[in-house]
This record gives sequence, C-alpha cells and structure tokens, in this order.
Amino acid sequence: MGLIVQKYGGTSLGTVDRIKNVAKKVAAAKAKGDDIVVVVSAMSGETDRLLKLARQVSDYPDDREVDMLLSTGERVTIALLAMALNDAGLKAKSFTGRQVGIITDSAHTKARIEKITAERIYEALKDGIIPVVAGFQGIDDRSDVTTLGRGGSDTTAVALAAALKAEACIIYTDVDGIYTTDPNVCSSARKLEKVSYEEMLEFASLGAKVLQTRSVEFAMKYNVPVLVCSSFNNKSGTWVTREDPSMEQVVVSGIAYDKNQSKITMTGVPDRPGIASKIFGEIAAANIVVDMIIQNVSQEGLTDISFTVPRGDLKEAALIVSKISKEIGAGDLQIKEDIAKVSMVGVGMRSHSGVAAKMFQTLASEGINIMMISTSEIKISCVIDAKYTELAVRSLHEAFQLGKDPVSKP
Amino acid sequence: MGLIVQKYGGTSLGTVDRIKNVAKKVAAAKAKGDDIVVVVSAMSGETDRLLKLARQVSDYPDDREVDMLLSTGERVTIALLAMALNDAGLKAKSFTGRQVGIITDSAHTKARIEKITAERIYEALKDGIIPVVAGFQGIDDRSDVTTLGRGGSDTTAVALAAALKAEACIIYTDVDGIYTTDPNVCSSARKLEKVSYEEMLEFASLGAKVLQTRSVEFAMKYNVPVLVCSSFNNKSGTWVTREDPSMEQVVVSGIAYDKNQSKITMTGVPDRPGIASKIFGEIAAANIVVDMIIQNVSQEGLTDISFTVPRGDLKEAALIVSKISKEIGAGDLQIKEDIAKVSMVGVGMRSHSGVAAKMFQTLASEGINIMMISTSEIKISCVIDAKYTELAVRSLHEAFQLGKDPVSKP
Repeated sequence: MGLIVQKYGGTSLGTVDRIKNVAKKVAAAKAKGDDIVVVVSAMSGETDRLLKLARQVSDYPDDREVDMLLSTGERVTIALLAMALNDAGLKAKSFTGRQVGIITDSAHTKARIEKITAERIYEALKDGIIPVVAGFQGIDDRSDVTTLGRGGSDTTAVALAAALKAEACIIYTDVDGIYTTDPNVCSSARKLEKVSYEEMLEFASLGAKVLQTRSVEFAMKYNVPVLVCSSFNNKSGTWVTREDPSMEQVVVSGIAYDKNQSKITMTGVPDRPGIASKIFGEIAAANIVVDMIIQNVSQEGLTDISFTVPRGDLKEAALIVSKISKEIGAGDLQIKEDIAKVSMVGVGMRSHSGVAAKMFQTLASEGINIMMISTSEIKISCVIDAKYTELAVRSLHEAFQLGKDPVSKP
Repeated sequence: MGLIVQKYGGTSLGTVDRIKNVAKKVAAAKAKGDDIVVVVSAMSGETDRLLKLARQVSDYPDDREVDMLLSTGERVTIALLAMALNDAGLKAKSFTGRQVGIITDSAHTKARIEKITAERIYEALKDGIIPVVAGFQGIDDRSDVTTLGRGGSDTTAVALAAALKAEACIIYTDVDGIYTTDPNVCSSARKLEKVSYEEMLEFASLGAKVLQTRSVEFAMKYNVPVLVCSSFNNKSGTWVTREDPSMEQVVVSGIAYDKNQSKITMTGVPDRPGIASKIFGEIAAANIVVDMIIQNVSQEGLTDISFTVPRGDLKEAALIVSKISKEIGAGDLQIKEDIAKVSMVGVGMRSHSGVAAKMFQTLASEGINIMMISTSEIKISCVIDAKYTELAVRSLHEAFQLGKDPVSKP
C-alpha cells in the first residue's frame, strides 16, 4: 500500500458526467489499496470566464483581486468531486489550498510555493478519507489568497506529492502522454514510455504544453516520479523520471516546435559595451520575454543583433527597439513576424555527436533556410520560416527514425 | 464622520454594469466623509446555478461540500466589486468571511454566527481602504467553510454593523422599501417610512421576503438601525428600528400574505393525551414546518385537528398523517391544497381593540369565508381560500385606510 497523488485537469472535469467519471477512476485506484490524494483544476473554460468578467469590470484589475476571483474555480471542482465521491460510497472531503497549508510568497497571479504543512491531509488519510485538494492556489503569510499561474495545478500536485513523500504523482490530462512530436503534425509520432526531467523541461519550455515548467522543476528537485496519462482512456501514459542509463541509448527523444515567435533584427548597431544591456534591459522592463539572441561579429565597429519574442509582444518590442535604434544611431530594423522554432531534445545528445550536422542537413535537403541556431547540452533549436514548420518536423522525425521503437536500437 | 455598513443583494450585482453602478454608489457615500464597509451577495442566479450542478452530481450532496461550493459565489462578487472600486480610483480590498473572522457553528448550510473578530476590517479602515466583505459565509472552529442559509448576506451585514458599532446598516435591494402591502396586488400600497423590528419580524416570517428573519433578530438584539432601499434609484427607503411612541399611533402598519400554504384536517381523532405530539412529532421529524394548528373541542371523545403546511410539503405530510390516522383509528382526512394566509401587522394593536372584529367583518362583507384564525400581540392572521387572496388584501387595505399617510391621523 502506497500513497499516490492524482491530478485531474480542467478538460477531465469539464462536465458533470466527466466529474462522475473521474470519481470512478479515483474509486478504482482506491480499490487497489493505495491511499489517494486528488488535486483538481477548475472546470475547463471557467478560468477564462472569470478573467473575462474581471476585464469587463476593469482594464487593469488588481492582482490580489484577480487571485480572489480565480481561486473560486478550483473550489467549485473540489466540492463537486467530493460530492461525486461521497455519492459513489467513498469517504471524501474537499480542501482549499489554505486548508492544506499551501503557503506561498505574495506574488499574486504567479506565486511560488514556499511550504506545505498538509496536516489536514494526514488527518483525513488516517480516517480513510480521500482528500480532494484545490490546485493552483495557496495563501501568503497575510492569509491572502494567491494563485500559481496558468497550469499551476500541476505544481500543486507535484509539490504535494513531494511533501507527502508519495510514491508517484499521476497527471491525468486530455493527451495520452508525451509524444516524439505533435501527432497532429506527424502521423508517425510515437508515445514515449519515459522521459527524463531534463528533457521534459526542454519540452515544456518549448511550448509542448503538457506540464507546467515549474511542476517539472519541482519533480526534479524532489525526485517525484510523474506519470502523464489521459483521463479518457486506460492507456499507459509517459513516465517523467530521473535519468537512467537506458535513456542515454536514445540520442533524440523528441521534436518540439513553437510557431508563436517573431524575429527582430537591428542592423548597424555600434559595437560597444552597454548597448546590448540597454536594449534587452528595456525590453525586459516591459515584461517581454526574449528567447533567442544572436549577435554577429562586428564589421568596422558595427554589428547586427537578432532576437526572437512571442508574437503577441512583437509590436511593443518593435516600438522599444525602434526608439533605442534612433538614440544610438543604428541602422534599419528588420522584422519577420512569421517564424517558428523547431527543437530536437534528448539526453543522449550529451554522449553522441553529429546530431546538429544531421539536423542542418535534413532541413537543407528540404530547402528550408535556417535563420538562427541555439543549442544546449540536450537540445538543438533552429529558427525557420513558419510556413515550413510541419515539413521540418516531419522530415526530422523521419530522418532520426523517431517513429521506431527505441528498444530495437543497439 | 460615521461608519456605515452597506449591503448589496444579488440583483444589484447581477451584471458587470450593475457592479460598476454599485461602485459609484459606494464612492458617493464615501465622498460624504463616512467610513464604508460593503457586504455583498452572489450575482443573481449564481447560487441556483451552483446548486443545480451539485444536484446533477449527487441526489444528496454533502452539506459541507455544498457550503464549499456556494461560498464561491460571494467570493466572485467581492473580487469584482473591489476591482471596480479600485478602477474608480478608490482604495478597496476584498475579504472572505474567514478573513474578517466571521466564526459560526458547524451547522453547514444554515450556520449561525457566533463571533466576529473583524481585525482586518479595522486595519483596512485605518488605512483608508474600503473593505468589501463576502456575505452569507463564515468558518467554523475547524476552519471549514460554512454558509448562513438563503438571504444570509443580510445577517452578515447586520452582524458586522453590530460588531463594528456602525451608525446604520443599509440594505440595498431591488425594492424601494417596506410597503403597507404588495404593490403588485394593491395599487394604493404605500411605502412605510419606518417599521419596528417586531413588525418587520412578522412581515419577514409571513413571506414578505425583503429581509432574512435572522438579520432582523440580530438588528433587534443589538439595536442596529437598518435602512432598506433600492440600489436602482435614490428614493428614501424604509427604516427598521426600535419601536418609538409615534409607531403606536398607527394601529395597522401593513398587510402580508402567503399563498404557499395548504391545509390538512384530520377528523374523528380520539381526544386523549399524546395524540397531537405523535402527529406533529412525526411531521417535524420529516423536516416539515407546520404553521397554524387548530383543534376543536371534542364531541363524544372525538375531535378534529386542522393545520397548515407549505404547499411543497403537502404530499409528504398527507402520507404521514394518513398512516397515523389508521394507527389511531381516526376518521377521514380532508385536504385543501389552495389556501392563503392573510395577516395584519402593527405594534399599535397592543393598545387598540377592535382590529380583529373589523378584519373579520371586512372579509365577511366580501363573502370571504375564514377557515382558521391565529393571533399574536401585534398580528392577526386569517386562512382563506387562495382565490380570494387579492380581494382580501385590497379590501383590508381600503378598510384600514393604509393608503393614507398616517401623520394625518389623530
């Protein structure tokens, strides 16, 4: 008998029938003899509905009040799921973030968990009660309600699993698991049996929105085995775990892409200290996240700087950069709105060479021009014209034979 | 400069525009120099929406979970109204029942307030912040969320006004105030300038659903002046206050009616001790509220017993009584589904005689048969056929000249 934390996302709880279905899944897990703690998100659409109300009331709603508002979404689902479990003959009780002692900092709408006391969970488990815990929320040291940012329920689940020293944290979602790439783009995409925390972090940050990045960091820090699987079927899912020797056998685990990017190039920038820090300082001050930055070697004291920003922030970033360009006497601004980042991820890259070369060659053979390149120990990213995204993903998936089961490899 | 507690009901907060309108009213009151504490209900329809979800999930949803669910309604409105106030340039902060220390017993869905600490309200007022407090909810000594029953936000407002020693509690609702009778039934109905707590208690318990009964009891106990007025206009409203000498001048303050009643008559009931307690004990055990009971003098050891129950409970009550009838060998059961109770209320009745006689005479002159009569010190109620309700109300209103301003009386 172990302790399992189960987390159900908004789509899995989107209707009364789905809530009853989740109750059945919880009951089945409980029947196997494990202790179960359930963490839930708001019903799908609810958070957006509430945010819309807030924006109708105020163009700049106060963050503390936004948290008060949004935290109601999960309170509705914990109550409904606890009712459904009680109705199915199990003993269950709902708990808010506060009631299970999820203490965060005071950064409203993007708070970080600092401590979990969990007394009432221990107490409930001792009484044979299934605790149903509101994800996404906590309280700060003033006892004000805070939320953890989009996808924060994953973080609640993993953090609770760590605090309770659970055997595993199972994230039930609307996909079967982690795939070698987006099955909508590539029909030969294959579900991975397991990926390492490091790989998952790269996937998560690359826009494959299965798990919130912070939840993976938490899982890695406290070594919580996480299983991602669907609440709509009984397929096996994907384990996200500590790296093991078998993972290194696989050079490339998967291919991620992000089409939500734009590129800005500043030409004729005076190549002297302080310029880059001025540019990116002002962009950061506007809360715009710059992803890739490339600076070419300078010619006659002038250089070109290219960088990418989320497409929604392009206009604002361009305005800032254009102002700075004038101030420092730089040349024209070149803007490319429709770009995509295609990335190959795999812990095996550490010990295998030639991945980058093969990637560039594959793209070249399809006539796809590479605009920017960035690499990490376990990742290679290329920025290309957005219209080639699907072609690039499919070609790379084929070239690296990701559709084949890795156990057949030497 | 004083302290005023304002309470806004669900209809006053039913849309984003109405929430903004409430923000304007709060701002105007604040501009007059008073300290304002605002208490709000859930947006109209929200509590019903949530209850419907609960019933879809479970036929008998757990009361603790119902409270967890319903308490979200007021949290949404406190957040939205605080945003609207901030947006209008005022400083405002939302607080849940827990955050202002509203401690109740553990009777979920119908909890009673035991204590209010209100530290954060004092703190906010000191900082010039308008506290926006969730009505209808508190926490018990286990820190579990409780709710106060339908209309409980009125009780929150009055209890807060008592705890804060506020000058007054203003209940903003969708009616202008308390009328001599229902203006939809009687066109000459006149708005009352003031009524006593005792009169208001009779009105409230008679189905004139302007204020929750318990909130009036609270106001009476702690002598909180309550003003009932509309949030949709600037009319003067009705004060609910301690009885003053001028009130006794008025014999009848108003006429209330309740059409939601049915009558059951048991005939040939053996007249021996213990029978009535058996009948009404079993009905009470089924949570059915019996209003009026009449037992005639017995003839040859047999008597008739008549009583009224809410129409929705008639079927169940009839089943129970029919079972008992057989057990004790009583006669036939007579059931009258469509009855109404018409009541005249006024503290002046204490010192004026002849009101009952005039009431009976007025009804008789319209050919309306009186089935049951019950009286208290400040009230006379008659049960009549429901189809005569409007006729009875109009005739009595006319006979007692309630449409005329009472200051013209001697």
